[in-house]
Amino acid sequence: MGTTETLARFVVETPPERITEPLLHEGKRCLINFLAVALYAARDPSLDLLLDLFREEGSRPLATVLGTGVRTSLQNAALANGYLGHLEDYDDTHFPTVIHPSSPTIPAALALGERQGASGREVLAASVLGIEVCCRIGLAVYPAHYDAGWHITGTCGVFGGTAAAGRILGLETLQLVHAMGIAGTQAAGVREVFGSMAKPLHPGRAAQSGVLAGLLARKGFTGSTTILEGRRGFPAVASAFYDLDKATAGLGEDWVLYNNALKPYSCGVVSHPLIDAMAALRNREGATPDAVERVTARVHPLVLELMDRPHPQLGLEGKFSYQHCMAVGFVDGAAFPAQYTDGKVTDPVIVSLRGKISATVDPSMAEDAGEVTLTQKDGASHTETVTHATGSLKNPMTDGQLNDKFRNLVGDVLPGKRVERLLEMLWDLDKAGDIRDLMALTRTTRRTIRR
Amino acid sequence: MGTTETLARFVVETPPERITEPLLHEGKRCLINFLAVALYAARDPSLDLLLDLFREEGSRPLATVLGTGVRTSLQNAALANGYLGHLEDYDDTHFPTVIHPSSPTIPAALALGERQGASGREVLAASVLGIEVCCRIGLAVYPAHYDAGWHITGTCGVFGGTAAAGRILGLETLQLVHAMGIAGTQAAGVREVFGSMAKPLHPGRAAQSGVLAGLLARKGFTGSTTILEGRRGFPAVASAFYDLDKATAGLGEDWVLYNNALKPYSCGVVSHPLIDAMAALRNREGATPDAVERVTARVHPLVLELMDRPHPQLGLEGKFSYQHCMAVGFVDGAAFPAQYTDGKVTDPVIVSLRGKISATVDPSMAEDAGEVTLTQKDGASHTETVTHATGSLKNPMTDGQLNDKFRNLVGDVLPGKRVERLLEMLWDLDKAGDIRDLMALTRTTRRTIRR
Repeated sequence: MGTTETLARFVVETPPERITEPLLHEGKRCLINFLAVALYAARDPSLDLLLDLFREEGSRPLATVLGTGVRTSLQNAALANGYLGHLEDYDDTHFPTVIHPSSPTIPAALALGERQGASGREVLAASVLGIEVCCRIGLAVYPAHYDAGWHITGTCGVFGGTAAAGRILGLETLQLVHAMGIAGTQAAGVREVFGSMAKPLHPGRAAQSGVLAGLLARKGFTGSTTILEGRRGFPAVASAFYDLDKATAGLGEDWVLYNNALKPYSCGVVSHPLIDAMAALRNREGATPDAVERVTARVHPLVLELMDRPHPQLGLEGKFSYQHCMAVGFVDGAAFPAQYTDGKVTDPVIVSLRGKISATVDPSMAEDAGEVTLTQKDGASHTETVTHATGSLKNPMTDGQLNDKFRNLVGDVLPGKRVERLLEMLWDLDKAGDIRDLMALTRTTRRTIRR
Repeated sequence: MGTTETLARFVVETPPERITEPLLHEGKRCLINFLAVALYAARDPSLDLLLDLFREEGSRPLATVLGTGVRTSLQNAALANGYLGHLEDYDDTHFPTVIHPSSPTIPAALALGERQGASGREVLAASVLGIEVCCRIGLAVYPAHYDAGWHITGTCGVFGGTAAAGRILGLETLQLVHAMGIAGTQAAGVREVFGSMAKPLHPGRAAQSGVLAGLLARKGFTGSTTILEGRRGFPAVASAFYDLDKATAGLGEDWVLYNNALKPYSCGVVSHPLIDAMAALRNREGATPDAVERVTARVHPLVLELMDRPHPQLGLEGKFSYQHCMAVGFVDGAAFPAQYTDGKVTDPVIVSLRGKISATVDPSMAEDAGEVTLTQKDGASHTETVTHATGSLKNPMTDGQLNDKFRNLVGDVLPGKRVERLLEMLWDLDKAGDIRDLMALTRTTRRTIRR
């Protein structure tokens, strides 16, 4: 059996009970994290550009655009929600492939699930299986494919969206094989567009491709049966080196989904151990911003290479200033989007503390580690060592931290009671009879926020 | 100025009068050929799969799906019409790049032109400029890009669709630059899916990407400004070798559009000189099928490699049987789709003649050349030598031959009077005030034909 059929069969034939409690739990975490960042991102004015287009097209209201009052076609909803999931660069990361798998995958499951009133458990299963397939194909082509300049979230993402769509639609194996061909030959996205709106459009388009391919394949549309193993298939064409065995090794036993990590802080990942350290130091006795004489950090070389920006003037610059990240970690004990506004980077308390922070490179330091020493004006000194930053594979975000992230992000978009109701429903989603109840809670009168 | 901006400026700033009479004429030929094959293809049952989907989406009726009574969204119409243009493998070919440029380009111009009531001249200019840009980007990446396994019509096609869309929409240069980024990062299509419906979906999706990118860029959506010249741009990522100078050399002076050829016969291109020869031999005195003792051909090696199939049983097999192609060329003097039905390949007269046909390879023969000797039972013998097959660059189809192709294909779909009315309107399209008059003539109650 070829790789394509093996993966399709896995998606089609895995019985619900093989999506065990820990997998469902991981699926919920992915969904909660995805909804947090997508709902938050819905305030961005750029979403208007897509919504305007949808309005002009005037499709039937079949599926929800998260964080808006809009329902549109399945394809459009998947496009917009994939866009929203990745817009803030705050979605999940499958570390071994640097794929952000939820954004191209979950929107396909949600759109089709909403259309047909799928159960929460079905949507979770489709998301889990989609993410698994997406990341496994990523493993087969990483790193050559990524190094060549492809945005792997856009390319491999089509397989996640397609698998999720295929599972919700109840495709037969051969139909899903063809759907993988139809969508796989639409795999796209180059890293040149990083920094533009076309970057988050990649997972949007991937999710849309998955929905389109699933719907077409169910009707009998064909797309070859060998998109993965063929001589002119996606891996052979788009990756100088690849190993298809990695896509199927231990399939259904060793779930690569568990290497998918959630991002606690809304900023460059190399600063995360330093934020952890500062958040810990703020709890030490006498450690107020006023009392600080100086803060010195020992850091991985990438921190200075990527994030040495002592005087950020814009919120966006703050996201790539280790000094700012450390300062807000200490003052606010947090690094949510609220810590990266233009107002926050010019806040006098933060500016003053930033000026006291410096770092030296320690080449022996791991990327997810760091050490920070805070010296007070009274001479007292505290040192905090972080071995594995929050959100790294060895120290994943706790469910409580994920709840905090959700509350913090979604609290800006929905009323507090609704936020709690949503969270409750999400953690119990495997018991929900119809995903449409969840989707109704994600609709709201939208307010846009100029940044 | 970078390559992307140079090409965008060319599309935006070329004044109408620089699209001279010969260019308009070539544009008309591309459009007539495109409409002929797309209208013919609309009878194919596979189109139902797309139309069903559009019906479920229920978009506003903004643009026509050719050969149907359906009007749908701009994106959907571009998708379907691009699909139809390429479905029969009978569209144009830019020989130096093997791109089929009309199918991904013209549908974008038609959909947006219909939406806003553009003039015929505007649609022709957008098509000419789109095809030019598409083929020029192809020249920059060919052959490495194609050899790697990319379907260059799908990948480079997005730039054709985007340029055409940008011209019709009246984008500013910077907007078109961004549109090229938005669509260029969606460039997709691998050759693995050849033989499936996903192949013609490539130009459909490319045209759709062009429409989407144009509409979004006009609203302010961004997509980087360096999709062609950037370190992680489309050529660098998707082609092992490329030369951007080829994309801009002689721009606006030497039109590479003139290397775009129309396909006279509905079958494998290497058989075309042999069909020419047989069509000429049927006019020789006494040369009736009954009178033939044997036919021998001297051919380019690819003929036997690709098309040695003495006993085809299906119409589709006939398209790749040089024996069948030669037989119909002699008996019917034609090689339209009507010559490749299941009935025709089993027609006793054709079967009998096919049995008398053989070929020997002559390595010195050019690919567009061939020599055929017909020996009659009475001992008479005629030899016909073809130096450049009809439809090759050195011997393009005449306008009369193109009219024949149009009449033959569209005659199966529209009433005869309408066919003539359409042809008349097309040859005068530069004088048409509103493209919607043309599009109205392409709408009809659709009949599907099972093959």
